[in-house]
Amino acid sequence: MLIDIVLDAFGADKAPEPEIKGAIRACRHLPVRVHLVGPEPELRPLLEQHLGNQHELPIVIHHASERIGMDEKAAQAVRAKKDSTMRVGLKLVREGKAAGFVTAGNTGAAMATAKMVLGALDGVDRPALSTIMPTVSRTPSVLLDVGANVDCDARNLVQFAKMGEIYARSVLKIDNPRVGLLNIGEEEGKGNELTKEAYPLLKALPLNFIGNVEGRDIFNGHVDVIVCDGFIGNVALKTTEGASRLMRDLLRESLTSTLKSKVGALLSRQAFNAFRKRLDYTEYGGAPLLGLRGVCIIGHGSSNDNAIYNGIRVAAEAVKTQTTEAIAREFAGQIPARPTHDAGEAAGGSIPYHDQSAH
Amino acid sequence: MLIDIVLDAFGADKAPEPEIKGAIRACRHLPVRVHLVGPEPELRPLLEQHLGNQHELPIVIHHASERIGMDEKAAQAVRAKKDSTMRVGLKLVREGKAAGFVTAGNTGAAMATAKMVLGALDGVDRPALSTIMPTVSRTPSVLLDVGANVDCDARNLVQFAKMGEIYARSVLKIDNPRVGLLNIGEEEGKGNELTKEAYPLLKALPLNFIGNVEGRDIFNGHVDVIVCDGFIGNVALKTTEGASRLMRDLLRESLTSTLKSKVGALLSRQAFNAFRKRLDYTEYGGAPLLGLRGVCIIGHGSSNDNAIYNGIRVAAEAVKTQTTEAIAREFAGQIPARPTHDAGEAAGGSIPYHDQSAH
Repeated sequence: MLIDIVLDAFGADKAPEPEIKGAIRACRHLPVRVHLVGPEPELRPLLEQHLGNQHELPIVIHHASERIGMDEKAAQAVRAKKDSTMRVGLKLVREGKAAGFVTAGNTGAAMATAKMVLGALDGVDRPALSTIMPTVSRTPSVLLDVGANVDCDARNLVQFAKMGEIYARSVLKIDNPRVGLLNIGEEEGKGNELTKEAYPLLKALPLNFIGNVEGRDIFNGHVDVIVCDGFIGNVALKTTEGASRLMRDLLRESLTSTLKSKVGALLSRQAFNAFRKRLDYTEYGGAPLLGLRGVCIIGHGSSNDNAIYNGIRVAAEAVKTQTTEAIAREFAGQIPARPTHDAGEAAGGSIPYHDQSAH
Repeated sequence: MLIDIVLDAFGADKAPEPEIKGAIRACRHLPVRVHLVGPEPELRPLLEQHLGNQHELPIVIHHASERIGMDEKAAQAVRAKKDSTMRVGLKLVREGKAAGFVTAGNTGAAMATAKMVLGALDGVDRPALSTIMPTVSRTPSVLLDVGANVDCDARNLVQFAKMGEIYARSVLKIDNPRVGLLNIGEEEGKGNELTKEAYPLLKALPLNFIGNVEGRDIFNGHVDVIVCDGFIGNVALKTTEGASRLMRDLLRESLTSTLKSKVGALLSRQAFNAFRKRLDYTEYGGAPLLGLRGVCIIGHGSSNDNAIYNGIRVAAEAVKTQTTEAIAREFAGQIPARPTHDAGEAAGGSIPYHDQSAH
């Protein structure tokens, strides 16, 4: 009945507190069983402490002795740390003991470990890291790839389009998602060699391809799925982060220097918080790595418990809506050979799925 | 004594009013003579009207019968319109009648016309469009290329680094500018084929190369000149525009819904305006197209008179500081054969240059 989700308990910068709190909240409000992975001697007393008398909650601990740090080089860490929280956690998914994996750890290491342990679905050349971006409308957009793959070819972009479209439909609940090619002009024929080659291939797909879009369209609600090479997407993502931080800093400075009175300061703080909430990445739950044999969500290192909660929520939603199975069908014309335990059952549609309702 | 600057009078969306007002202000406050280019029968009465009794101001009109629209395809417009304001204006620079050109018109058409009419300096493979980006510090950063060249090779990036560094030193007055390579990670060896190839070449240059930088560094004051392929730069620029617009919209919404009282609304408007001023692109005067035989500044289509004024100011500053000559020396080891009329004289250093002081 419950959807089994693995959570790397030692991913976030402030781990394991955000993970423990997020997991407890998820177990209280979502139909999930959370498998916390980390050094048990350290993790168990902390979990017990936070649980208090909520012993009925479906949280289990799986021991893993090693943690991959944020500043470690991915390839090296993945090779050297055979008993990392990431590897142990992803093995649980591979073995069918859980259907999804969530981490707020080192993105490079998470991608490398997930590709190694889970593997790509048949027909998927390169799994793609996708971010969910805020827009002026209430529906966010999906940008992919944002750094899993650089030096992509046109065929890769076509695969990203298909996977992003499925994710937008299943997890974000967007009907007939508009898919756009990130480019430097709107007219067909614009762009670099890659986008010129990809355009006709995307146009030929049986999905709602709306043509070229530009950087500003990521946020203006004109497109739902934005496809690009991983280098471009990563630059776009980090540029957005930088521009947002600059604007927040300047705004804070401007508000505090202008609104000198106490009432002004109070009002401005309220406005600023409301504003911040609309842009809050923690609501989106992290970046799905699409195209793997299992659900994998990678959150920001600065994730708090709300971000972790939403990471688990999104992973469970992807399992419930059979995103992996849909991508597998799209690419291979059939359900993948390896079953994802619990996923099929939980996603059968007969189990009520309460998004944020109380347990 | 005066620096001759050509201004496309029919560039901006609301032309020619911003151009006429900006030109008048420039002539009153800067040591410049402005050559307004446009259809004389339409332009002269408007200029007379705005001038009033300031007949002593050094503004002259040059007739050009055609205007290139914002939505026209660049290549086609440049071919078809032989008497466009852009072509006539740039010819004045080529013929030595002026030292710099400013337009707020169609960027693609301006780039194509400038390359055709002025030509690149010896040794410059591809002139680069550079934007000036706001940062948390008082000094902006320079990002190039932002769309003049896609599918760049490592040699192109090296040239962009040299040109951007000279511009940052001469026009932005940055001592020993820090030059960074826009990439998706900070460590050497990160990135795509292009950045991996460019890194050692940049490292070998006799300038202050600080290695790889990421999208967020454009704004955080850690780097002064950011070098990238034109496709990447254009995506970064337009993503910044989109993210800024989203944040402004959400902020406005948040402020108006939170600050209900009149005093709150007044306070918030003040704060918002102060904030907006810090991010105001009109202060930067537009994007220089570097590497040509003459100064060429391309402003935003939405330029107001302040943006035009600053475009003229920046063009004059580039002439005065001999940016073109410095780039020519860097690339060819010598001053270019073709003299840029007035530039040498005006830039001699003996003429006082009053930035914003009254005439």
